[in-house]
Amino acid sequence: MNLTELGRQAREAARYVESLGITEKNRCLEQTAQALLEGEAQILAANKEDMERAQKKGMSQGLLDRLALTPARIRDMADGILEVAALPDPVGEVISMKPRPNGLLIGQKRVPLGVVGIICEARPNVTADAFGLCFKAGNAVILKGGSDALSSNMAIVECLQRGLEAAGAVKMAVQLITDTSRETAREFMRLNGYVDVLIPRGGAGLIRTVVENSTVPVIETGTGNCHIYVDETADFKMALDIIENAKTQRIGVCNACESLVVHRSIAQAFLPALKLRLQDQQEEGKRVEIRADQEACAIVPEFVPATEEDWGCEYLDYKLSLKLADSLDEAIRHINRYNTGHSESIITQDYAHAQEFLNRTDAAAVYVNASTRFTDGGQFGFGAEIGISTQKLHARGPMGLQALTTTKYIIYGNGQIRS
Amino acid sequence: MNLTELGRQAREAARYVESLGITEKNRCLEQTAQALLEGEAQILAANKEDMERAQKKGMSQGLLDRLALTPARIRDMADGILEVAALPDPVGEVISMKPRPNGLLIGQKRVPLGVVGIICEARPNVTADAFGLCFKAGNAVILKGGSDALSSNMAIVECLQRGLEAAGAVKMAVQLITDTSRETAREFMRLNGYVDVLIPRGGAGLIRTVVENSTVPVIETGTGNCHIYVDETADFKMALDIIENAKTQRIGVCNACESLVVHRSIAQAFLPALKLRLQDQQEEGKRVEIRADQEACAIVPEFVPATEEDWGCEYLDYKLSLKLADSLDEAIRHINRYNTGHSESIITQDYAHAQEFLNRTDAAAVYVNASTRFTDGGQFGFGAEIGISTQKLHARGPMGLQALTTTKYIIYGNGQIRS
Repeated sequence: MNLTELGRQAREAARYVESLGITEKNRCLEQTAQALLEGEAQILAANKEDMERAQKKGMSQGLLDRLALTPARIRDMADGILEVAALPDPVGEVISMKPRPNGLLIGQKRVPLGVVGIICEARPNVTADAFGLCFKAGNAVILKGGSDALSSNMAIVECLQRGLEAAGAVKMAVQLITDTSRETAREFMRLNGYVDVLIPRGGAGLIRTVVENSTVPVIETGTGNCHIYVDETADFKMALDIIENAKTQRIGVCNACESLVVHRSIAQAFLPALKLRLQDQQEEGKRVEIRADQEACAIVPEFVPATEEDWGCEYLDYKLSLKLADSLDEAIRHINRYNTGHSESIITQDYAHAQEFLNRTDAAAVYVNASTRFTDGGQFGFGAEIGISTQKLHARGPMGLQALTTTKYIIYGNGQIRS
Repeated sequence: MNLTELGRQAREAARYVESLGITEKNRCLEQTAQALLEGEAQILAANKEDMERAQKKGMSQGLLDRLALTPARIRDMADGILEVAALPDPVGEVISMKPRPNGLLIGQKRVPLGVVGIICEARPNVTADAFGLCFKAGNAVILKGGSDALSSNMAIVECLQRGLEAAGAVKMAVQLITDTSRETAREFMRLNGYVDVLIPRGGAGLIRTVVENSTVPVIETGTGNCHIYVDETADFKMALDIIENAKTQRIGVCNACESLVVHRSIAQAFLPALKLRLQDQQEEGKRVEIRADQEACAIVPEFVPATEEDWGCEYLDYKLSLKLADSLDEAIRHINRYNTGHSESIITQDYAHAQEFLNRTDAAAVYVNASTRFTDGGQFGFGAEIGISTQKLHARGPMGLQALTTTKYIIYGNGQIRS
């Protein structure tokens, strides 16, 4: 597979997609959604191949579940694309336009990024999802999925291309890299000049590989070691409700709470209540193991002594680390040292503490008196998200359609030269 | 030299700088400007060492000029810092804040990037300049200069640190990597977790090395193969004034014009006028060599036949490539194929062509009827610039203080949990 040729075609397709108006893009999206529904048999047959191969090689049940497609999941993919079609188009807005003393009129206009590369793991529904968002923002997409989902991805991309053709559009606006070798993956990550940005969607290992090897700019989406700090003046009931929600509502997600910091002065009263809520009152199998520092373990003997590794750990499980702190300052320092820059929350009734926590905590999303689980494009009102950025460049936090665009300066003159 | 320890100190310093208010940051900047003036003798002595070493190894006169410091240049460095102090502080502004249906109030606040790494070549004035901008935007800075400027950079950074101490501030807000080995440079480019962004400031070779080797996010600043397209309806006098300005006003800069595209229908009349303006009417030594396609050479025999390489070349010299095009579409395709995404201009009196050129040309800055030389932070009204980004992520075009910041979401709740 000649990646440079594929990149060249993507660049050409990107110029085409950029030229489309809102109505044309939405018609394309509707046709691709339709093509997914019409391709159900083809997609299911391809997915069956992937599933059989995966079962033979002994893939775990959890991963098999993620790989499996059903008519309902295909309908969800199509619905997802239609939802994106219904969102406002981010492209073309002129954000500002001001005259300069020499009469030049300088404006900044929102434009597509160009070619977006997506590297994902064995979750075929991500393929349609990522295409929809990138295309709506005016971009061409190159997808690379894991080898386990290859047949499914090929069928899905074929359907998407068929939909584009039905709408009279350039089908190369979405392309799949079908060679799943490591060498091709590396070449893809170094396709500067053809790919404007790479977005890895998957676990920490995939993200690290992309960051390590890519020369194309990367948007790192991320792992979340999210903290909740229970301040001296916290309302206990509110704190327990929020902690329970942030820890147990869905354990496998990046905005789940993984670490608590509790003010020392309330530990004697609060920790037993915490144990009651997260352990005694939970169903079998959903009791939260609390790995705490020495002093907290002395107050609640059921807590497990934490090691240094616990402070930085994203459990994605019914586990939670817990540290006592003497002050807001100590709590913030602990969080800023061990967090992953995702989401952090303070529970407090103190005005100054709330403001200080918002100011000093270094993360994409910082909360007062709310669950970290809200860090999500849908919850933030973006309609959809391509991921949650934990880096500081370009986009930070949930990324909606706007994160898939850039700007360019447009300048109206009437003969100005520089003196 | 232990880069991890240096990175740890920079991270700590960044938290401190972020906590400073506008008045405190400006007082620090004033003190560092003062310290540069007071350190004149020390800086000049150190620069003399660098100059002697450079002369011995036979550095070219051009590079020696860039390396040399004088009392006037030191005053310029100090003045540059004071000018940055006078600019509005970009940090702390809440760009938007809106309630969600569940009562959460979600805002986006502008905050510093954290630790900015600057890699530059043998131009010691960049050191003070980069520090001023990064610090004003609330960041700590780690600088790495070329080995040729090591003594000068050490003296400058010592003065800056002395100024910070005089203002009662943490001096580690600016640090210099004094080990100029290639290995240390590579280690610096992989200091993820300690450095939030790397900005290379120098020639194409340096930028390529940083893009190739860095795992820390990079802002690519750029080379400029800038085009001017002379459309059918162009006013010839305006076109010639703009081309002369863009090509000859300063030949060594990235926003200088390097390539012309001329509509074929006006070639017979326009090309001789172009030759007159850029060759006959220029002083000896400032006559522009025009490397043109076959047809243009047939019209003006003094033009030199262009090769394929010319179309993509950033000459930084009294040279210009020239291609005829049959249409606006062909012109835009040529530009989008060979440009570096910097600055492009159309000279036209046609409304639809002006709009189409602005829409379809893929570059950081796209002009109608003006010189490409205006792509500059000062000219755009930013007060100062850290470079001109030719990438699409984070910042595109001239980068002022705002490009040295990021945002974080701040969320005010009153007990919200996710259902």
